[in-house]
Amino acid sequence: MTDDAVRLELPSPLVKEAVAVALAEDLGTAGDITTDAIVPPDARGKAEIVMREAGVVAGLPLADAAFRALDPDVSFVARVADGTKIDAGTAVAQIEATTRAILTGERTVLNFIGRLSGIATLTAKYAAAVEGTRTRIACTRKTTPGLRALEKYAVRAGGGLNHRFGLYDAVLVKDNHIAAAGGMRQALEGLRARVGHMVKVEVEVDTLQQLQEALLYPIDAVLLDNMDIASLKEAVALADGRVITEASGGVTLETVREIAETGVDLISVGALTHSPRNLDSSLEWVS
Amino acid sequence: MTDDAVRLELPSPLVKEAVAVALAEDLGTAGDITTDAIVPPDARGKAEIVMREAGVVAGLPLADAAFRALDPDVSFVARVADGTKIDAGTAVAQIEATTRAILTGERTVLNFIGRLSGIATLTAKYAAAVEGTRTRIACTRKTTPGLRALEKYAVRAGGGLNHRFGLYDAVLVKDNHIAAAGGMRQALEGLRARVGHMVKVEVEVDTLQQLQEALLYPIDAVLLDNMDIASLKEAVALADGRVITEASGGVTLETVREIAETGVDLISVGALTHSPRNLDSSLEWVS
Amino acid sequence: MTDDAVRLELPSPLVKEAVAVALAEDLGTAGDITTDAIVPPDARGKAEIVMREAGVVAGLPLADAAFRALDPDVSFVARVADGTKIDAGTAVAQIEATTRAILTGERTVLNFIGRLSGIATLTAKYAAAVEGTRTRIACTRKTTPGLRALEKYAVRAGGGLNHRFGLYDAVLVKDNHIAAAGGMRQALEGLRARVGHMVKVEVEVDTLQQLQEALLYPIDAVLLDNMDIASLKEAVALADGRVITEASGGVTLETVREIAETGVDLISVGALTHSPRNLDSSLEWVS
Amino acid sequence: MTDDAVRLELPSPLVKEAVAVALAEDLGTAGDITTDAIVPPDARGKAEIVMREAGVVAGLPLADAAFRALDPDVSFVARVADGTKIDAGTAVAQIEATTRAILTGERTVLNFIGRLSGIATLTAKYAAAVEGTRTRIACTRKTTPGLRALEKYAVRAGGGLNHRFGLYDAVLVKDNHIAAAGGMRQALEGLRARVGHMVKVEVEVDTLQQLQEALLYPIDAVLLDNMDIASLKEAVALADGRVITEASGGVTLETVREIAETGVDLISVGALTHSPRNLDSSLEWVS
Amino acid sequence: MTDDAVRLELPSPLVKEAVAVALAEDLGTAGDITTDAIVPPDARGKAEIVMREAGVVAGLPLADAAFRALDPDVSFVARVADGTKIDAGTAVAQIEATTRAILTGERTVLNFIGRLSGIATLTAKYAAAVEGTRTRIACTRKTTPGLRALEKYAVRAGGGLNHRFGLYDAVLVKDNHIAAAGGMRQALEGLRARVGHMVKVEVEVDTLQQLQEALLYPIDAVLLDNMDIASLKEAVALADGRVITEASGGVTLETVREIAETGVDLISVGALTHSPRNLDSSLEWVS
Amino acid sequence: MTDDAVRLELPSPLVKEAVAVALAEDLGTAGDITTDAIVPPDARGKAEIVMREAGVVAGLPLADAAFRALDPDVSFVARVADGTKIDAGTAVAQIEATTRAILTGERTVLNFIGRLSGIATLTAKYAAAVEGTRTRIACTRKTTPGLRALEKYAVRAGGGLNHRFGLYDAVLVKDNHIAAAGGMRQALEGLRARVGHMVKVEVEVDTLQQLQEALLYPIDAVLLDNMDIASLKEAVALADGRVITEASGGVTLETVREIAETGVDLISVGALTHSPRNLDSSLEWVS
Repeated sequence: MTDDAVRLELPSPLVKEAVAVALAEDLGTAGDITTDAIVPPDARGKAEIVMREAGVVAGLPLADAAFRALDPDVSFVARVADGTKIDAGTAVAQIEATTRAILTGERTVLNFIGRLSGIATLTAKYAAAVEGTRTRIACTRKTTPGLRALEKYAVRAGGGLNHRFGLYDAVLVKDNHIAAAGGMRQALEGLRARVGHMVKVEVEVDTLQQLQEALLYPIDAVLLDNMDIASLKEAVALADGRVITEASGGVTLETVREIAETGVDLISVGALTHSPRNLDSSLEWVS
Repeated sequence: MTDDAVRLELPSPLVKEAVAVALAEDLGTAGDITTDAIVPPDARGKAEIVMREAGVVAGLPLADAAFRALDPDVSFVARVADGTKIDAGTAVAQIEATTRAILTGERTVLNFIGRLSGIATLTAKYAAAVEGTRTRIACTRKTTPGLRALEKYAVRAGGGLNHRFGLYDAVLVKDNHIAAAGGMRQALEGLRARVGHMVKVEVEVDTLQQLQEALLYPIDAVLLDNMDIASLKEAVALADGRVITEASGGVTLETVREIAETGVDLISVGALTHSPRNLDSSLEWVS
Repeated sequence: MTDDAVRLELPSPLVKEAVAVALAEDLGTAGDITTDAIVPPDARGKAEIVMREAGVVAGLPLADAAFRALDPDVSFVARVADGTKIDAGTAVAQIEATTRAILTGERTVLNFIGRLSGIATLTAKYAAAVEGTRTRIACTRKTTPGLRALEKYAVRAGGGLNHRFGLYDAVLVKDNHIAAAGGMRQALEGLRARVGHMVKVEVEVDTLQQLQEALLYPIDAVLLDNMDIASLKEAVALADGRVITEASGGVTLETVREIAETGVDLISVGALTHSPRNLDSSLEWVS
Repeated sequence: MTDDAVRLELPSPLVKEAVAVALAEDLGTAGDITTDAIVPPDARGKAEIVMREAGVVAGLPLADAAFRALDPDVSFVARVADGTKIDAGTAVAQIEATTRAILTGERTVLNFIGRLSGIATLTAKYAAAVEGTRTRIACTRKTTPGLRALEKYAVRAGGGLNHRFGLYDAVLVKDNHIAAAGGMRQALEGLRARVGHMVKVEVEVDTLQQLQEALLYPIDAVLLDNMDIASLKEAVALADGRVITEASGGVTLETVREIAETGVDLISVGALTHSPRNLDSSLEWVS
Repeated sequence: MTDDAVRLELPSPLVKEAVAVALAEDLGTAGDITTDAIVPPDARGKAEIVMREAGVVAGLPLADAAFRALDPDVSFVARVADGTKIDAGTAVAQIEATTRAILTGERTVLNFIGRLSGIATLTAKYAAAVEGTRTRIACTRKTTPGLRALEKYAVRAGGGLNHRFGLYDAVLVKDNHIAAAGGMRQALEGLRARVGHMVKVEVEVDTLQQLQEALLYPIDAVLLDNMDIASLKEAVALADGRVITEASGGVTLETVREIAETGVDLISVGALTHSPRNLDSSLEWVS
Repeated sequence: MTDDAVRLELPSPLVKEAVAVALAEDLGTAGDITTDAIVPPDARGKAEIVMREAGVVAGLPLADAAFRALDPDVSFVARVADGTKIDAGTAVAQIEATTRAILTGERTVLNFIGRLSGIATLTAKYAAAVEGTRTRIACTRKTTPGLRALEKYAVRAGGGLNHRFGLYDAVLVKDNHIAAAGGMRQALEGLRARVGHMVKVEVEVDTLQQLQEALLYPIDAVLLDNMDIASLKEAVALADGRVITEASGGVTLETVREIAETGVDLISVGALTHSPRNLDSSLEWVS
């Protein structure tokens, strides 16, 4: 199985919940008073979701679920799969449903598609920038509150790797933890025995000296925070394949290639999820 | 009472719910396994939320609620109110709580502050660009699914005006409604009597001819979609104060002033909420 | 499209939620212990919902959803649409389902039909009483906690108009707001600029003098509270079509016609939703 | 302990949930836009809940919870307990809180007080009508969907007895169950062994002959449905204290005394909860 | 209708809710990352639920619902009904679904089947031990938090009788209530009139003297707590069929028969639900 | 910091939610009808939670939260911390609250304490059995549906290690995954690149040959399923510290020591959570 086929699963309860929340927010208790006042309940129509900009599409299962919530008899046909690179003007899905369902669901659907495709597209740009190196692009926990699972999915759709999903599924010892513990030794000694054996442990370091100290403990990864290129290279040499190396801090599309060429395993980029630009999309009626 | 004092209320159940969702997402069922494994439960600390960039701050009530959810005995002191313009480096709030609560809540808090301050800051830039004209900046329904109420609040914090909150609180007749109805007459005739008397009715028009037709009906506002400057001026003249005029489409910080100078009442900007850049913030420990 | 066809839409998530709450309340965790102990799971039956009194029926979509929640294979055929005037003895819907589902759902269904048809019927009586005048009957926020959207729907089914759905979708400045602000000027000056442009503003006045003062500000409607007939006529003359006029207070089926003849646009009646009499209905088995 | 002191407990999670639902319905996501635009956040006020009509008050714990949800620092002092008979004009509670909280919560609070006091007052009238007989007044499952627990509480506040809360806490074999089973024998034989030993079993009968047949089985109560006075007397004689006798059907304030004088243990009255008139109440500011 | 056919109904909303909670707990927001990374989305498979130990099966409707939540097109065929005694090695259900759904749902399904079948099997052992006597085995409120309705269902599947479902559906006066009231008289006098007429009243007694005192009041049942065999016999004689007699305390499979032979109506056994051993089951693929 | 101090944190939203679910289940909508009918609302009392058996206590924070939900003014003092070994008869906590709150909360509290302490106690027995070896005892996903987080916490309280919390936080490739993929190579090749870098990968093997094949891929742990002692020793030798070794299958208190002495890192025991015996506890009043 290819990677792309497997990476892009979203738990279906999550999809339903996200769509329910979004529709509730838009419908309130009075519903779509414009459409209900103008469009007869039995009119049916056909429309397409068209991407107005080139990029990587993500969010089609949410579009399907949103229209289905409004019209159980909808026919929703995705023309491409999430994670596909498309040109501007591509119709990525076709919908046949009641005209009311299409009009009422339009904004909710485009809000999902726009944001998730924006993230996928930005991720794909970073991934392209490091192509040919051994480095992978990863996301962070700097996500929109309430949308993390969907945004991490969009990162996968764009070819990125997911960092931990939350505070619960991996240990990341940051500078503040070390300060609170009173030093790196106090933070790391015995730590491994205090967490489950299936939990990875990563430690944030700012300097090569800290890195050397961290490597004395049984850890899985190091987060090399805001290091310059020369230090990153030395850090990779010090790690020597024993731990995963992750660079972060001040990463832009301009700097990412140079960072990748230091040989780090991963570069994590907060902007993927905290500041993507929506990918412009629209709903076009098919007559 | 000044405008600012009143605009920035958020219903408190909303704040609690948003914070609960965000914390649940980050804590999962295992909780903050790093902090719990390293930091003693009774250690207490003091920290500040510091804005790393200049802009307009928004989201402090969410920060308060998030830390409070983790430590009911927190002392949270906001040094400025939401909606305040701040310089880079400003400490906007101080927190005293258990060290665990501060470390565990940090990312959730910064995710709220970053996104909402980003929206407020962008809104303030647009508002500044039209200062001196009679035009107000408004948001749209192009918001992040699940966060609309918070994002609309951030728009208010930045000095913008809220458009309708959803499909339920105002009528906006778009081109697709007119097409589905079979024409503007079919869409607008009798419409007023079919919706409550406290509901405003706006109609989207693309051309001056459409505007003239729309003005034959008892409507409250017109959305002048993607019109050029000359057409906007004529549209304002045609409307002649009888209906609210709103321009939308292709608005940027470069073009917004010129559009405002056509005399439209409002300019609505989707990018305020669909593509803001996070305002960089951090949590700094106070020793 | 006729008015009736459009007014009677209920957002389907609302219907499902209301039915789920009602069934949960009746089933608890042990379920229908009588039916489960007596009726075999595979028995099927046919029944009709019969209105025992003449009136206006409302609530059939909830009946459909309730039986469907208990038996996904139910056949539910509504013989009339919500909003239809029916005679005593009319069978408004026919159900074929498992006997268990019919017996278990009966009371929940009749509770919905009884209350909503009661509201629709009372509304229709008020609407009939003002027929031929230009006045419309409107509801208020004096609704049963948790059922407002359904009760407002029933008002529409009876031919009434909906006032605002909550505190969020329109401004209504009451005497207490004016008192809290320190006077009408303090309450109304600049108010328009503090709320969204798609929000209507109504002001409650008790006297003609207050009305004259309120008309100095850019408002959309006035609530003429508890005025006598002579004052209402003067108020309508003062308003002169510039604002919507709404009469309220002390309205009964005996007085409503005289009030309407003053020329007010609307008469709002709290009793429509706070004190309707249930319309008697029953479930009759069809052999 | 007196009866009244014990009957009027409401599980506190229920109170909080009911209040949360009601406030959410009224606040939406934009909140109280009128109050927020007019009243400064730090203004505080004092007000009273005044009953405009004589009756039995019920719902004060919900009022307390509603104001508390809006202002945690509220001082809410109930001057009388739920279940108290009061004269028109009685101030039943005093509130000191932010002016915003009082204005925002007013309608929600009065909606609860009005409906529940209406039920309590109607129940008290029925209870007074049978005073001096051995008969008690009971409610039914004909309640407002979603409010059953509160409405049953209001019945207790008015001096009535609660019938079963739902389908889950007692067996009531109705005519339709008997028909579905193929006869009374098929319905009742072995029934006792199929339900828990702590569950009471009541059987609905329409005739004395049915009553005689039902009494052959080990049941706890009989529902004498729509019997005339003479039959009720005979039924009570036949039951002879071995089972509880409950009369129902066609009960009004005019007929209830005569029914009670037949000696039945209980008279159940659907109208207590399905068609009470709201008891008029208001919020009055105290300067 | 036979007893077994009726006893084993579970309200379907309960089944869906229990399954949703269990799947959410197992899937988190990232989902089944193993299966998604290895198994193609379109692969389909066939598997059986096989009981590895002999016992009484319970929980199949939950298995059906769990697989259906993951694949709406699942074919789930139960080969036996809940409540059936099966040998080790029996395949109780066959599933055809996407391979992903089967793998992802496996553990959730087996957790339900294992626990509920464990309870049903233990109940059946107790029921067998008292066979031939007039005594029935009942459960208690010593259930797993959140699973009570399912566990009480499993007791019924094993041939046991359900005691009250919660604090709300029957009165059980325990020693602590009597102590809090200041004595049995204070606790029981007038109690019947303070609770609904459809509510049964049981009183816990430790001694024959207490029993005699309790029998002075109009109660339905007595809980004979931790009495020795001789006392139980006397208690049954004293009760003389006027009230239900329930023995509890120190009941084991070794002692239960002797207790039953005292003639008590019921023996309640907390261990049925608080300490059952899981019945071992597995999912076997069918090639 | 010692291990015990850190291991025993439970996210507080989880505690509140679990307690709310358990109380709702026990209170229904009518509440504790026994206590409300007998005990005056203002009576207060003092009680202790007493462990009737020796073992390891767990669940005290849930007890605290449950009583607090019923009486916000409760004083709850834990005399020992969760995870403490106690003798039979130890009073582990003291409560002062309204008598009603204590009586109403008693069963819910003891159900939590009984189950969680049962798990902690059983875990401690297994941990003691392997003391002196390098092996740790771990739990599995064979938990009670809905209680997993609490049960895993109880395992930690007993000195055990947590395996993954769900399908989402670690990869465990089982025989069925390998079969579905068409072989171990197809399952494991490229797998690492398809999951996040912070995710550990474990593979289940039944034979030494499978183990050798699995060790060809970059994995973190192996699950040695149902291997005999000799094979386990060889497996440990083969793994040679490069991967974590976990034994599972057929583990009992009798066999666990011998398994540990093979040198495996972990032994996982499903019975810890699927078949613990409740630890007997009670609530004793303090006069």
